[in-house]
Amino acid sequence: MIEYRNLRVGLLGAGSVGSQVAKLLLEHGEELAARVGASLELAGIAVRDPNAKRDVDLPAHLFTTDAESLILGSDIVVELMGGIEPARTLVLQALNSGADVITANKALLATHGPELFDAAEQVGAQLYYEAAVGGAIPIIRPLRDSLAGDRVNRILGIVNGTTNFILDRMDTHSDTLEDALASATELGFAEADPTADIGGFDAAQKAAILASLAFHTIVPIESVYREGITAVTKEQVDAARSAGYVIKLLAICERLTDQKTGEEGVSARVYPALISRSHPLAAVHGANNAVFVQADAAGDLMFYGAGAGGIETASAVLGDLVSAARRHVVGGPGVAESTHAKLPVLDIGQAITRYQITLEVVDQPGVLATIARILSEGGVSVEAVQQSVVSELIAASGPVVHSDSAPTATLVIGTHEAAEADLAATVEALAASDVVSSVASVLRVEGS
Amino acid sequence: MIEYRNLRVGLLGAGSVGSQVAKLLLEHGEELAARVGASLELAGIAVRDPNAKRDVDLPAHLFTTDAESLILGSDIVVELMGGIEPARTLVLQALNSGADVITANKALLATHGPELFDAAEQVGAQLYYEAAVGGAIPIIRPLRDSLAGDRVNRILGIVNGTTNFILDRMDTHSDTLEDALASATELGFAEADPTADIGGFDAAQKAAILASLAFHTIVPIESVYREGITAVTKEQVDAARSAGYVIKLLAICERLTDQKTGEEGVSARVYPALISRSHPLAAVHGANNAVFVQADAAGDLMFYGAGAGGIETASAVLGDLVSAARRHVVGGPGVAESTHAKLPVLDIGQAITRYQITLEVVDQPGVLATIARILSEGGVSVEAVQQSVVSELIAASGPVVHSDSAPTATLVIGTHEAAEADLAATVEALAASDVVSSVASVLRVEGS
Repeated sequence: MIEYRNLRVGLLGAGSVGSQVAKLLLEHGEELAARVGASLELAGIAVRDPNAKRDVDLPAHLFTTDAESLILGSDIVVELMGGIEPARTLVLQALNSGADVITANKALLATHGPELFDAAEQVGAQLYYEAAVGGAIPIIRPLRDSLAGDRVNRILGIVNGTTNFILDRMDTHSDTLEDALASATELGFAEADPTADIGGFDAAQKAAILASLAFHTIVPIESVYREGITAVTKEQVDAARSAGYVIKLLAICERLTDQKTGEEGVSARVYPALISRSHPLAAVHGANNAVFVQADAAGDLMFYGAGAGGIETASAVLGDLVSAARRHVVGGPGVAESTHAKLPVLDIGQAITRYQITLEVVDQPGVLATIARILSEGGVSVEAVQQSVVSELIAASGPVVHSDSAPTATLVIGTHEAAEADLAATVEALAASDVVSSVASVLRVEGS
Repeated sequence: MIEYRNLRVGLLGAGSVGSQVAKLLLEHGEELAARVGASLELAGIAVRDPNAKRDVDLPAHLFTTDAESLILGSDIVVELMGGIEPARTLVLQALNSGADVITANKALLATHGPELFDAAEQVGAQLYYEAAVGGAIPIIRPLRDSLAGDRVNRILGIVNGTTNFILDRMDTHSDTLEDALASATELGFAEADPTADIGGFDAAQKAAILASLAFHTIVPIESVYREGITAVTKEQVDAARSAGYVIKLLAICERLTDQKTGEEGVSARVYPALISRSHPLAAVHGANNAVFVQADAAGDLMFYGAGAGGIETASAVLGDLVSAARRHVVGGPGVAESTHAKLPVLDIGQAITRYQITLEVVDQPGVLATIARILSEGGVSVEAVQQSVVSELIAASGPVVHSDSAPTATLVIGTHEAAEADLAATVEALAASDVVSSVASVLRVEGS
């Protein structure tokens, strides 16, 4: 019988992730001790209501409402409460007491990350957060360690399972957004209030975390441009499918050149975008997540798996727990979060992307020439124009009756890459033109 | 100007990976120093012939033929010579001198891993080998750290780029093996002597490394069952495509129950197998690699990217170099390779898999009954039997002239899961049966 050093683990929160972490710790304690070289004792679980119903049966004596005492008696604190307060205060208390902290709290990291990392650095404690992005998918450690000698240029991430489930359902079942959301709710892939997911807020928090880490720069959540999926229509998804694309909600982090200063900057943004069906991200179905990373030397990498779920996320938390415990066993301070690069964070107008613009136009001679002139004046170069969409739609869904007397046609314009600001201004100019009845759809194209 | 502590890096070998590592170290030294908190000085490059032609121009004064002196003057040694000797002796010298060692040498790790890890543990040095499996793809670190609190049950890996290129080419171009190999050689995806790749030796070394790490158990290379792709035919690839499968060379590592003792054991094996086109591994094209991991809590994960190439592999080496350097900066011993589980390694006969068996049979009444009896007696349960293959082949490629007088038919039998030993014995019994003219193809089916 080997005698191990004992490490006390304080757990804050016993929701779907927290209760699984407690269960795994209790069940696999011996195996974990052998891997770590120290035994991991679950010292207690701080909760608001010890008698609340949990996903998992846990010994009643572990529960406490006194989080502060639990923290002071712990070597490692695992924060799985979510939300900003009291999580922020408790994590700071834990770090200030010298405990290592593990958190899956993306909202907290995206809004108070620098404060927490500073607190950790002050006392030589370590803050682990593998579970905050991509659930069980190892993405924080690969970015921080495996690619530490490389230069990451771009990240395209499907980092929200709910919206991927909905968009995948719209693609594979030709559902409306409302129907797909109803299915997601029914199957447990969407919360009762799905705003954080479908509004892109969750993905934006993750984009801030990924961009900060990948570019060694503080990227505040306020500087992440965000569009959710609420404006995505069945018609857009169907048209994307016909054109060989699929619509995904992407978290995009990339290095860019500031067009005003010529200096390097970074961009972090979240929006639904078209990607080619041949892109590896197009094959990410259901509520799965995947993060596609492009680096100078490593080339293209992709990390794929379940992006959420109590037990899956618990796996990532336990991986961090083993890392923290090993650090306690071997001694020595942790690796400080490096934000040495301090690159400016550029606004969405400076992002370089492609557009797919669908216009309803007056069907008369000279229209195409007018549109081509507007695009050219806007500095937007055209890659392809497709005029056959109307007839395709007619074939697919029966005759279309136009209510206005003038005959109209539908134009789908694919642009080359241009600055977002130029593209947006050009779309405005198109909308204002006499020959354009309406701008039916504007979607960005990513992943080229 | 920040003054950093200086760490001396000794490089052994200047081949396609080594020269890229040297180049990246020289070009990005300042950025790396900021990330590490120490400057990484390339102390020298030990080579056999300092005047040999290299992929990259490097300063002549760095080259030396005196590897031993270079090692003694280095804090971190990077071994990129390949092969067993003198690599093994030099790595042991480096570890014994207290230097951390980074290696991409899969042959060395698969054959002498335990000796090297023991040597490292003796002196508290660390051995890093992210680049040994999957080129730039972070797979070692995720298995060792991210999944350290989970329980890995199975790994299915496409870990050899050459064979994946060849099989993908056979699938997408309907090439013969010979033609696909010729293309691979022409495009630089196969070596002049492709034996290590197409014979499955390279994949078997990687399977031994992955299985040892995932199951905390020493898995010697001799215990890895190995079949290469040399027996894979165009006909098999075409038939797989029609049936919704693709053939991939898989490195499979899994936990199994020993059927004799009832105890837990592990299996490591490499062979070409059918996987469903809907499996994420089916979408891994060209010379790319991917490792699919199934864990208790994390569920299914996949890691994808370029599996080889000088600069891609150099990215993984530099990630290790940054980890090693951070460890020097913060102090403390490394994490010893844990082989505490000491599970028995089971032979291929105990593997549980499915078979797809293609038989040429005499076309007469009662044949199917005879075959069904043989399968049943062998303990093999049938999932599906397809008899339409002959007519399909005729339709696809013109009339088939049978040389023997008796009419024959082709039967494709898909089995349920069974022990490999039972399946193999049953195939032998089928081959010996009067009603079977020949066993045209036997392929394992994986990824269910």
